[in-house]
Amino acid sequence: MYDNLETPALLLDEGRMQHNIERMQNRMNQLGVIFRPHVKTSKCLEVVRRQMAAGARGITVSTLKEAEEFFRAGVDDILYAVAIVPNKLDHALNLIRAGLRLTLLVESVAMAEQVARHGAELGVCYDVLIEIDTDGHRSGVKPADPVLPQIAAALQGGARLKGVMAHAGASYDLNTPEALAAIAEQERAGCVAAAEHLRAAGHQCEVVSVGSTPTALSAQHLQGVTEVRAGVYVFFDMVMADVGVCTAEDVAISVLCTVIGHQADKGWLITDGGWMAMSRDLGHRSHGYGLVCDADGNPIPGLAFGKANQEHGVLQWTGEGDIGQLFPVGSSLRILPNHACATGAQHSQYLVIPASGGQWKVWPRFSGW
Amino acid sequence: MYDNLETPALLLDEGRMQHNIERMQNRMNQLGVIFRPHVKTSKCLEVVRRQMAAGARGITVSTLKEAEEFFRAGVDDILYAVAIVPNKLDHALNLIRAGLRLTLLVESVAMAEQVARHGAELGVCYDVLIEIDTDGHRSGVKPADPVLPQIAAALQGGARLKGVMAHAGASYDLNTPEALAAIAEQERAGCVAAAEHLRAAGHQCEVVSVGSTPTALSAQHLQGVTEVRAGVYVFFDMVMADVGVCTAEDVAISVLCTVIGHQADKGWLITDGGWMAMSRDLGHRSHGYGLVCDADGNPIPGLAFGKANQEHGVLQWTGEGDIGQLFPVGSSLRILPNHACATGAQHSQYLVIPASGGQWKVWPRFSGW
Repeated sequence: MYDNLETPALLLDEGRMQHNIERMQNRMNQLGVIFRPHVKTSKCLEVVRRQMAAGARGITVSTLKEAEEFFRAGVDDILYAVAIVPNKLDHALNLIRAGLRLTLLVESVAMAEQVARHGAELGVCYDVLIEIDTDGHRSGVKPADPVLPQIAAALQGGARLKGVMAHAGASYDLNTPEALAAIAEQERAGCVAAAEHLRAAGHQCEVVSVGSTPTALSAQHLQGVTEVRAGVYVFFDMVMADVGVCTAEDVAISVLCTVIGHQADKGWLITDGGWMAMSRDLGHRSHGYGLVCDADGNPIPGLAFGKANQEHGVLQWTGEGDIGQLFPVGSSLRILPNHACATGAQHSQYLVIPASGGQWKVWPRFSGW
Repeated sequence: MYDNLETPALLLDEGRMQHNIERMQNRMNQLGVIFRPHVKTSKCLEVVRRQMAAGARGITVSTLKEAEEFFRAGVDDILYAVAIVPNKLDHALNLIRAGLRLTLLVESVAMAEQVARHGAELGVCYDVLIEIDTDGHRSGVKPADPVLPQIAAALQGGARLKGVMAHAGASYDLNTPEALAAIAEQERAGCVAAAEHLRAAGHQCEVVSVGSTPTALSAQHLQGVTEVRAGVYVFFDMVMADVGVCTAEDVAISVLCTVIGHQADKGWLITDGGWMAMSRDLGHRSHGYGLVCDADGNPIPGLAFGKANQEHGVLQWTGEGDIGQLFPVGSSLRILPNHACATGAQHSQYLVIPASGGQWKVWPRFSGW
């Protein structure tokens, strides 16, 4: 099936992806919130088109390059969900002047003042969310922090407070439905509390945006939330399987590689899929560089991907039988990634296995800032 | 200095790079061997031009994409140093027919037979090296293995045995001059022994190719060796500093990033340089995601880069003073990478600080297969 395909190559199972898209969108519809997918996972127009077609309203991006690429393709409502810094304001301004409804993020008074001043000087009013920290995992302002209304107050003149957003990244380290439901509620309650804190101080706070793939799939209700963001759900990966919000059978991307040699005395298979094809992301360190499957995508018990060099994978066989006969030089393997965002970023295209069968399709993806 | 530069960005100090290039080439000249740099580190024509200008003869590549790009730019003697598999032979053949002197690598009788058959069927004679394993770290045939002359014998018809090559990748885990000199001698002696094994069996073995950055810089003599390969020396990195073959002051690339926020109660600085800008390569786990320096490239004691998300770096401050005042939002930091090959691969260009001072230059780099 893959004989004529140069390896390593990134495969995308369109049927699995479509299932993942519909699962998330249906859930958001049931919860009564707008869904704004985070497109940092795919960086691919064809994927985003399918998310929009399923019902997504606007997108979330991790770089202004993503904003630029997707705006050029017709997406006109974009949240840039990393706190803005001065060196990116001109880039953001250019996109807004070209017609993009771009929302920026701040988490400090200093930056709120700079954004407002930049907007006032250049005759634009930036839409801004304040980042809220509900789980201590990274950035943002605590919901009850007195600095919160100060940031809002600094958004005067060339900026406008649009709302608040939280991302419970700590959910990636959990793995029971109870713990996931609890952190989803913590994310919701914290973000809603921040909005109420701002409203009590006299600020409008229209948008209450929360999300991560684990919390989006685990929230019991989303009262007070207006929109949810999630990214990796579109492909899923072994980290998400470890968290428990998908199974290996839901993972829509894999790296196709070829056996290039053996070290029979050690039980080693050498492949042409090294860390350049997989990324160095070891996820929860439970699957090495990824879950090893046969050419049809079925996991191979006893074959572990523990070591990688730039263009070499070193797989350890602990099963029965002669590895040279079981996995001869030239044979194909597929590796399910630990982290779809990281593995995808190592490739410039997806080779798409169509849901309807038939010929491969090639979907380009971009990278950079 | 960096105020107008959008971050994250990959910086290249041209003066440091030029020093590294001359240091290695001078050493190879003294040892009396041809130097064939491995260009997988830079994937950049401007860098390779400087390596060739300094005296390199031919290059080593890790992908056929590299072979294609550098051949198009005029490099006509290229070793593809990953064992070939059937799905890449047509690509290799096209390059050879276009005029490239391409050398392939095999490490099994099965693949030697396939290469020879492919060449015979399509009317070309492939130049081939056999990969030799001198340190057990990955792939290749042991020097005394009886399969070695069998592989050579299989290279009949559409292929020709050109020689042997070894790569002592285990040298990356050493850190004393004595241990490095010993593994360099082990690599040399093993590869020369493999060549003698083949010659004793009646085969020509013109090329004896060894190398890695640590062994190239540690070999006491290279009797019997015809050429040396090394890659990462061109930029160096914190792994090479840990090994002891360079210092942090030799590292020619760094990732420029910007402080986007603080979590003052934890001593955290948040930057816009996450794992997408650094890669997930943790090296020897002695510098987190890289060594944190100020905007001029001087290391900052007390500031450690322990945690990264896709577009966020989380830096821990353990020094004295208020982090918001020491490192305000919008201030610049430079991170020296653990692994130059991995960090470089996350970027599509180098912003070059010219050796002579003056304006930035932009040097593109490519990726993929």
